[in-house]
Amino acid sequence: MYRTHNCGELRIENLGQQVQLSGWVQRIRNLGGLTFVDLRDRYGITQLFFDQEKMPELSARANKELGREFVITAHGKVQERSSKNVKIPTGEIEILVESFSILNASETPPFTIEEKTDGGEELRYQYRFLDLRRGPMQKNLILRHKFTREVRKYLDSLDFLDIETPYLIKSTPEGARDFVVPSRMNSGEFYALPQSPQMFKQLLMVGGYDKYYQIVKCFRDEDLRSDRQPEFTQIDCEMSFVERDDVLRTFEGMAKHVFKQVAGVDLNYDFPKMTYQVAMEKYGNDRPDIRFEMTITELTDSAKKPEFKVFDEAEYIGAICAKSCSEYTRKQLDELTDFVKRPQIGAKGMVYLKYNTDGSLKSSVDKFYTTEELGVWAEKTNAKPGDLVLILSGSKNKTLSALSELRLELGNRLELRNPDEFKPLWVVDFPLLEYNEEEQRFFAMHHPFTSPIPEDLHLLEKNPAVVRANAYDLVINGVEVGGGSIRIHDQHLQEKMFKLLGFSDQEAQNQFGFLIGAFKYGAPPHGGLAFGLDRWVSLFARVDSIKDVIAFPKNNSGKDVMSDAPSAINEKQLKELNIQIIKQ
Amino acid sequence: MYRTHNCGELRIENLGQQVQLSGWVQRIRNLGGLTFVDLRDRYGITQLFFDQEKMPELSARANKELGREFVITAHGKVQERSSKNVKIPTGEIEILVESFSILNASETPPFTIEEKTDGGEELRYQYRFLDLRRGPMQKNLILRHKFTREVRKYLDSLDFLDIETPYLIKSTPEGARDFVVPSRMNSGEFYALPQSPQMFKQLLMVGGYDKYYQIVKCFRDEDLRSDRQPEFTQIDCEMSFVERDDVLRTFEGMAKHVFKQVAGVDLNYDFPKMTYQVAMEKYGNDRPDIRFEMTITELTDSAKKPEFKVFDEAEYIGAICAKSCSEYTRKQLDELTDFVKRPQIGAKGMVYLKYNTDGSLKSSVDKFYTTEELGVWAEKTNAKPGDLVLILSGSKNKTLSALSELRLELGNRLELRNPDEFKPLWVVDFPLLEYNEEEQRFFAMHHPFTSPIPEDLHLLEKNPAVVRANAYDLVINGVEVGGGSIRIHDQHLQEKMFKLLGFSDQEAQNQFGFLIGAFKYGAPPHGGLAFGLDRWVSLFARVDSIKDVIAFPKNNSGKDVMSDAPSAINEKQLKELNIQIIKQ
Repeated sequence: MYRTHNCGELRIENLGQQVQLSGWVQRIRNLGGLTFVDLRDRYGITQLFFDQEKMPELSARANKELGREFVITAHGKVQERSSKNVKIPTGEIEILVESFSILNASETPPFTIEEKTDGGEELRYQYRFLDLRRGPMQKNLILRHKFTREVRKYLDSLDFLDIETPYLIKSTPEGARDFVVPSRMNSGEFYALPQSPQMFKQLLMVGGYDKYYQIVKCFRDEDLRSDRQPEFTQIDCEMSFVERDDVLRTFEGMAKHVFKQVAGVDLNYDFPKMTYQVAMEKYGNDRPDIRFEMTITELTDSAKKPEFKVFDEAEYIGAICAKSCSEYTRKQLDELTDFVKRPQIGAKGMVYLKYNTDGSLKSSVDKFYTTEELGVWAEKTNAKPGDLVLILSGSKNKTLSALSELRLELGNRLELRNPDEFKPLWVVDFPLLEYNEEEQRFFAMHHPFTSPIPEDLHLLEKNPAVVRANAYDLVINGVEVGGGSIRIHDQHLQEKMFKLLGFSDQEAQNQFGFLIGAFKYGAPPHGGLAFGLDRWVSLFARVDSIKDVIAFPKNNSGKDVMSDAPSAINEKQLKELNIQIIKQ
Repeated sequence: MYRTHNCGELRIENLGQQVQLSGWVQRIRNLGGLTFVDLRDRYGITQLFFDQEKMPELSARANKELGREFVITAHGKVQERSSKNVKIPTGEIEILVESFSILNASETPPFTIEEKTDGGEELRYQYRFLDLRRGPMQKNLILRHKFTREVRKYLDSLDFLDIETPYLIKSTPEGARDFVVPSRMNSGEFYALPQSPQMFKQLLMVGGYDKYYQIVKCFRDEDLRSDRQPEFTQIDCEMSFVERDDVLRTFEGMAKHVFKQVAGVDLNYDFPKMTYQVAMEKYGNDRPDIRFEMTITELTDSAKKPEFKVFDEAEYIGAICAKSCSEYTRKQLDELTDFVKRPQIGAKGMVYLKYNTDGSLKSSVDKFYTTEELGVWAEKTNAKPGDLVLILSGSKNKTLSALSELRLELGNRLELRNPDEFKPLWVVDFPLLEYNEEEQRFFAMHHPFTSPIPEDLHLLEKNPAVVRANAYDLVINGVEVGGGSIRIHDQHLQEKMFKLLGFSDQEAQNQFGFLIGAFKYGAPPHGGLAFGLDRWVSLFARVDSIKDVIAFPKNNSGKDVMSDAPSAINEKQLKELNIQIIKQ
């Protein structure tokens, strides 16, 4: 062992002890005859002290030979510092070095290894092994470790079994976003990498493993955004002999456990449950951020008026009320208008109503509306003197979505979205099906194994569009961290479902044959969910990108710039796999 | 929830309680007016009781409607059994059923769901979800869960961090056994699936994460044998600032922990360390089964004699002594001769020497050797009256390997290989390099990052063939359950190593470039190892095939016969990936 202690553990109690420390040289300060070296490892920083007068040779060597990020080991005695640093736990002591050796030299790093580095994103990913030495990255990865440890501890305590499912699975004809793996032994055939272990966990339920979990990599070959990676990690769970509220209770317990043990946050209340319908109408969004109010009020009936065409022709008119913002300037209002008119949001314009502190009402459309009419808007949106009402109109779905964006933007501007405050909720009763106008058929909103809620079963044939799914999402601060459903365990209902989704028997058989087959042999009622580990840990780490909680992420083109993956492979390999690249 | 209790938890203390149980119908017995149904889940079996006299309708329904493997839920009262079953924990009680319902029917399973099934291997894999319901499979998967849980508990307690490394990595030109994954976004390029996270864990050491572990899937596209799977699970570990014995101490601790907590075996002693050289000379094998002696004695010098050509021309002559086997019959000796002559073993013949209980010596070659000469063999092999000495000869390596097989076969026949006895040891000081006669160059026996042992460093250029590696294997009962090494952290030594292995700078750069690059920025001394989870769990489960501890294994052609993977994918998918299958 190259050390007796790590760089984060020595204290005033250790005074006088002979110790050996190893680590990286964070910085070197030469103050006249005294040399100080900050030695760093993942546990902390300890100051090494070289006294030129007492040990001139050693001190000279330190000054001459050491450089930033050198790896060294040093022997010496713990002594009290003359000038203490109260900011770090080891700040009261230092090591009077008696001997040291360089374990490895280092070239000058391409960016500084500090809390805030001067390295840009591309450089940091190229030298990820150096980026990983930085405090924030170490904190994030340690947080991730603690997170999975506590998840396991909680689930283990409830008799859940961690069971591994395969990574080389069957590619399904509709698995357009599957990564595939050519098989050498079975020429012309391919495995797929799992987008989730969904079918296997359902088979485990059929197999009698009534509480399953796995922290597992999943793969999806889709165009990437900042919060997407081609490989991502799920906490995948399934239970048998349960109904919806059993699942929610179990995993609300898990959420509270990790909040307490990992984030130090006590959530001593039942998480609210909000239906999909309410979430859409009040927040314009199925993953509402409920850290702040400012919910949406529909004004369609009260604001229509032939004199104002924009509203009169709109399918939907909706408003949010920003508290204490009646004094927003022209410029601020223009910024918000520009914000909602961005192509990603797509509103045509924005109407405002200022409820001034003197009680007067001022609107961008007051030439079309009487003060009384404006008063109705204020009343409906529950505006008080000093508030600002912002109104959008258009098609219902688009307008709700734009109002949601506007609400979140205002939340940011008004600092209502405190990253240290956590407000989880369950969103429930999602629609079972989505109608696709183009293909003129229904698609499963979740997946084809999702069960309808029992009260809606009788509507399945008469009016499938209104049937609600027995599905649920866990949403925290506007982020969907997980979701799942009670599954269909009855083969007749499953067949009905496939028919609704327009699968022929043959198609259903091709795609899900082995699961359908398994359901003939006594499938228990079951349900479960999966959590996105990367996203949830990002929330706890207070970072925007999941890349900051992944040791070796890919960039937005799916590349690992450090190792240069993916890359070309040689002809011999291709030949063995019996494939060739199409020349373009 | 469809149950108040599981099928394994009710006891005599619960008498009189109203309960609800759910599970699978294991068997139905109709004894005149009384019907008994064994209800099963993964926790156990509870007897349901239907009294025809008191509840004629319910009883009739049970007899008429229920079948094997039906999933049912039943309400009733816990009562004492009139005829108790002491073999199961719930055997003192039964449920007097008051109502029940069928949650799902089942077709007749293709094989019996019993401890010993009548289903053959192929059928069991095809209906793996049913095979998984059997007691032995459930026991194995629960054992595996406990195993990983205890590994994590131990490593967590020592501050190891569980860090995920990527699955989509760079394919290296020499990665002939890599599974590859075509990239859609980077046309003509491929990811590889990791054969191990070796380079990434070394990068984590460079990144300052001084204690890393991961329980991780690895992939190798090679022809399969009974103990190989295209995807397998490793407990992958690495530490910084350590020397060999620090690593061994840490993981010997882990082994003792899992032995105690998972297998209930107390190993209160230091695991023996045996050099590779001793292992080869005494056991003919670098993973010796030390549950029994019967070690190999070299007789090359004492047994050569011009009269007996076979020995006289042999490079090596070696013997093992089977205690108390002098009365082996002609037939038994012929069987052993046939065994060593099998092509996999390849001996030309076998010589025996019986040390009869009356003190006389009888050998298959006694026309060539005097009694005194035979007496020397007996003495050297430490044979006593009643023992049998078996002697093989030929080239050294082949003969040692054949003696090893013979020794293990005799161990089996003499029941010296008790599966309930565990004898771990460390095998150390492996050769660093292997010379390949065909290619006329050295190969790394472990991998090119393995460090030589410090005492042998000076021989690296003069006599590389004798240099020992700072590498180690953990062997239990003849199975290599893990292995690793201290790595090279000095870039100059690494360069020397690449040169020895015949890599040009360019080749080294292509294959390991990013790791070599990382080593320039202060790599700490480090080392680690990886354990084969599947194998180790198989040992604890007392099963021969790792398939029995994997929920969904592949068969020997790399196929999952249940889901039919791998399989063809459609033209559209191929086109998107810009590849085509070579027509044959």
